Amino acid sequence: MALRGVVTPILTPFEADGSIAIDLWVAHARWLLEEGTHFLSPFGTTGEALSVSSKARMAAVEALVSAGIPADRLIPGTGLCALEETRALTAHARDLGCAGAMTLPPFFYTGASEDGLVRFFDALIAAEGRPGFAFVLYHIPSHAGVGISPSLAARLHKAHPEQIAGYKDSSGDWENTVAVIEAAPGLSVFPGSEAFLSKGWPLGAAGCISATCNINAGQIRRLFDALDAGTASESLDAEVKEVRGIIQGAGLIPAMKSLLAHRLGEPRWLNTRPPLMPVDAALGPAIAEQLGQVASHVAA
Amino acid sequence: MALRGVVTPILTPFEADGSIAIDLWVAHARWLLEEGTHFLSPFGTTGEALSVSSKARMAAVEALVSAGIPADRLIPGTGLCALEETRALTAHARDLGCAGAMTLPPFFYTGASEDGLVRFFDALIAAEGRPGFAFVLYHIPSHAGVGISPSLAARLHKAHPEQIAGYKDSSGDWENTVAVIEAAPGLSVFPGSEAFLSKGWPLGAAGCISATCNINAGQIRRLFDALDAGTASESLDAEVKEVRGIIQGAGLIPAMKSLLAHRLGEPRWLNTRPPLMPVDAALGPAIAEQLGQVASHVAA
Repeated sequence: MALRGVVTPILTPFEADGSIAIDLWVAHARWLLEEGTHFLSPFGTTGEALSVSSKARMAAVEALVSAGIPADRLIPGTGLCALEETRALTAHARDLGCAGAMTLPPFFYTGASEDGLVRFFDALIAAEGRPGFAFVLYHIPSHAGVGISPSLAARLHKAHPEQIAGYKDSSGDWENTVAVIEAAPGLSVFPGSEAFLSKGWPLGAAGCISATCNINAGQIRRLFDALDAGTASESLDAEVKEVRGIIQGAGLIPAMKSLLAHRLGEPRWLNTRPPLMPVDAALGPAIAEQLGQVASHVAA
Repeated sequence: MALRGVVTPILTPFEADGSIAIDLWVAHARWLLEEGTHFLSPFGTTGEALSVSSKARMAAVEALVSAGIPADRLIPGTGLCALEETRALTAHARDLGCAGAMTLPPFFYTGASEDGLVRFFDALIAAEGRPGFAFVLYHIPSHAGVGISPSLAARLHKAHPEQIAGYKDSSGDWENTVAVIEAAPGLSVFPGSEAFLSKGWPLGAAGCISATCNINAGQIRRLFDALDAGTASESLDAEVKEVRGIIQGAGLIPAMKSLLAHRLGEPRWLNTRPPLMPVDAALGPAIAEQLGQVASHVAA
């Protein structure tokens, strides 16, 4: 079965001391699944993954599963620079029964050759690949400094057709998304924004993996289902994009954390780990007001 | 005492299985100290730091000290994205008696604000700073995607004058080096190349921290001493630069690993960890021949 759907790279709430606020995280995960997200991806960029130690990441994913979040709805981020550490996170997710892992290329190695990146992923998959466990290649060159080009994606998918199941394109570059879809038939390509959901659909995009699912999963899921049923309306698509625009314009992570703090009356949602700054509590009410003017969000 | 000297970001030799070849590493460290390097910086970019797990890095630095390499000549790289993991590596180096730690900013966070980076380093130093333990800020924007600007360096040095002792400028941008020297009086600024040693000297640069010290530490130390004594000759400076140019032109890490494999008859020096590719054995003899034509290297 090809990997498809609406995937939420779930935000990570922190206590004042920087440890993960597990109760808030579980509640948020549960709400997102109720809203209709197909999968959750803990510890992506939106989840401040790289600010949290491997040890704390593993403990937190375990806590989600212990709290009743189905492991087969989870695709944790596991990519680190060091192969050994990427392997450890990947093996942990797999052994917990997760659906797959979202893997960055070894960032920092900005001069890595395509052969070198193949060497890295080949070693990862040879060691940790198992039937039914899906690797999602994570392309976010703005942060990683190292991309996963259409040619690299095609090479890896061809070499490991059972393992390399997906590609998350967080480049924001539509041309790249189209090029990967064309270069790697059978690979599930997820644009990094729901704003590309309708545009990607006729080309065979698999859904989206988008930060803003954290506050708009229900509506994005409705759009996904409508596209699937051939009943998507322009007004629904326009509203999804409008919400995205409001959140993106207000700064994504801080905007969503402040909105959740406001909606839930929960100031712990304002916490971040350095190098992010603590979130401005005033942002949430302002965003809520803007969202209230988007027709279908009056009830949100 | 201000931090000064020739600092070698020591290469890391690997066994065929990717573990660190401790015997080769100790021998190389010993030779570099005999050649006159003031300090060794294990696990910098040249040492493929980001390809090695924290656990393996700590064990390897311990092995150097156990083998008799004086801890107070070591300034290990300890910067990772996650504060907790940076803290752990830093505390380990400090508790081992190392002279200091070379710390990257939290790379991957390419959108981090100056305040956010201050938040990160403040937390690191509050938790792990101790009298006599020197932090060297590591500026390598080409790889990290996040730099340490002159303004940030000045802010951090002012806030922690006893702790923030140095700045390694691997930008290759001479204007940046000059700007940091001017912005942060009292901070030991090390250009990332011995080609800037003479040029930096009259401005008060502290020496250099340079990859090519791995194969030319002796000559670089002679230039440092000659500059210190006011007896540096243009011919010595020109030769140092010529050697640098040969190694840099041949690709730094692979060039030096292949040269060491050739000089020592030790094929394990050809190993790298992914995403680097295994090193071409033919490179070493070719470089050795080029170096043989540099007058003072005939004997090397």
